[in-house]
Amino acid sequence: MNKPHHQAVQHPDEFSLIKRFFQRKAKQRPDVMMGIGDDAAILKIPQGELLAAAIDTMVAGVHFPEKTSPFDIGYKALAVNLSDLAAMGAAPAWLTLALTMPQSDSDWLQAFADGLFLLANKFDMQLVGGDTTRGPLTISIQAHGFVKPDDIIYRHGAKAGDQVYVSGTLGDAGLGLLAVTQQKQLHDHDKNFILQRLNRPQPRVELGMALRGIASSAIDVSDGLIADLRHILDASQVGAVIHAENLPLSSALKNNLTNEEAVKLALTSGDDYELCFTIPKSREQEFLSKINSLSVPCTRIGDIISQPELQVNGYHGEISTTGYQHFAK
Amino acid sequence: MNKPHHQAVQHPDEFSLIKRFFQRKAKQRPDVMMGIGDDAAILKIPQGELLAAAIDTMVAGVHFPEKTSPFDIGYKALAVNLSDLAAMGAAPAWLTLALTMPQSDSDWLQAFADGLFLLANKFDMQLVGGDTTRGPLTISIQAHGFVKPDDIIYRHGAKAGDQVYVSGTLGDAGLGLLAVTQQKQLHDHDKNFILQRLNRPQPRVELGMALRGIASSAIDVSDGLIADLRHILDASQVGAVIHAENLPLSSALKNNLTNEEAVKLALTSGDDYELCFTIPKSREQEFLSKINSLSVPCTRIGDIISQPELQVNGYHGEISTTGYQHFAK
Repeated sequence: MNKPHHQAVQHPDEFSLIKRFFQRKAKQRPDVMMGIGDDAAILKIPQGELLAAAIDTMVAGVHFPEKTSPFDIGYKALAVNLSDLAAMGAAPAWLTLALTMPQSDSDWLQAFADGLFLLANKFDMQLVGGDTTRGPLTISIQAHGFVKPDDIIYRHGAKAGDQVYVSGTLGDAGLGLLAVTQQKQLHDHDKNFILQRLNRPQPRVELGMALRGIASSAIDVSDGLIADLRHILDASQVGAVIHAENLPLSSALKNNLTNEEAVKLALTSGDDYELCFTIPKSREQEFLSKINSLSVPCTRIGDIISQPELQVNGYHGEISTTGYQHFAK
Repeated sequence: MNKPHHQAVQHPDEFSLIKRFFQRKAKQRPDVMMGIGDDAAILKIPQGELLAAAIDTMVAGVHFPEKTSPFDIGYKALAVNLSDLAAMGAAPAWLTLALTMPQSDSDWLQAFADGLFLLANKFDMQLVGGDTTRGPLTISIQAHGFVKPDDIIYRHGAKAGDQVYVSGTLGDAGLGLLAVTQQKQLHDHDKNFILQRLNRPQPRVELGMALRGIASSAIDVSDGLIADLRHILDASQVGAVIHAENLPLSSALKNNLTNEEAVKLALTSGDDYELCFTIPKSREQEFLSKINSLSVPCTRIGDIISQPELQVNGYHGEISTTGYQHFAK
């Protein structure tokens, strides 16, 4: 059904751009009745599943330094949306792309598409629609996935007595940004790791799906642990005690920072795209045996309490209460 | 489920922006399990329906003049997406909003939200998610709707012998742009009408739904009649003969332009968001009786032919073959 257009004129216009760089790579999923090539995509949700939809924008100079490689921009623009799906326990399916760029640059587009599709293919996602427009470099991606009603992991389910976990390590992307902006010189052998963490975050899709029916709440760490955990606490009307000495820190973070600096980044810097989630004590054994089969380390960092406040034990630095805010004064 | 966040700090940050201007107005549809307020929206597609999804971006200075009113920007950003759903025969349901703006401006946001929700409420749509970021003014909206498998109106169904129709009048938005950019002075009594046509296009949602099972193909006129009809012809592997004297022109267009100028705008200027569609002769009576009950005038402008070419009879000016192209040389 998705017939190609027979463009008579062969300049790199909007339509041929989409065809050259995006349509040819689009995986064909059987649940896509119409992908790119009509006024709207037409999509089939499997029986019994709900649709999960997340949209995130990345702006050059705001969400990534201007000189970030187009491969990494394409990769990360999708990664941050997959991370949102993961935090709901959803399985990825389709994406749409709104790409605004100053000019049509084949090399840039090729690399951008390569980064985007590396991740899309990994999760069997199909690009089903989009809009390419001229303007300052801005990428909005909407990711769609499926989740059954009983499997949804909301932010508002945490209860006093639940244990607080995070996946992976925290603060790496924050250190990466300090390195990229020349505010921190890293040891050579740590630099690659840290830049990978900044530019190629691994959305925790498998973990999110493994947490279905087990975690009482989840969120992805995009604005910083404190800020994001606070969303869980607010939505659940509970509090938490976090132990700074339990925060998972990478060797690279520890090699290049004092303990206090490292903990501060782990608590407050964003962009790690790990999951922060809560596990009821009654599900702890099930949880531990389940994550044994995944290659994602998870660390218990604290506990949910009934009093609606967030305590961080063992850290005496100043902590921003709100994380990264686009329009804070 | 959609509990508000209890933000301790009351500066106009990203979260309170969303709450103040967008969340409070969000209509609550029973098919929204989770709207704004978690990592992703969770949505229920009715049994037997497919999901239609369209995403479109508007960039300040590209898609609208910088001084366009925020009300009109909010209105039109949704209108262009509803127009895409209409062209598929889909019924609108949900939208997500990716809003990038240089600074947080309450007055601007209030007016933008008013324009957006005027149209959203008209079509019972719920805003279910979004992302507000700092950067050059750019708005991407994704509209979601429902359509049953047998009701989808694709671009590729036109057959030789079908009749070509358009809704409303053509060229008005093109003239509006000439007026706004001071390239054309309009008679006072026409100016309001023409600016309404440019800034507040009426997405033809009811018409699109009425054409289900009747039209053999449809597209919305966003890039210009010639360019958009050509997409139908290419996808359907047919051609068309259009009669310039049959093109529906508003009095305002005729009052302010020569016939040749008016026809040229009707053929080539974009942004009218009317529907162009094809009706098989066998469905003509059904079509005519159906549109009788709608308040949308539809005009027969030509016929589909088997030879894959587009002829415009009665017009001898030059016609761009491709319509508005973002990245044309």
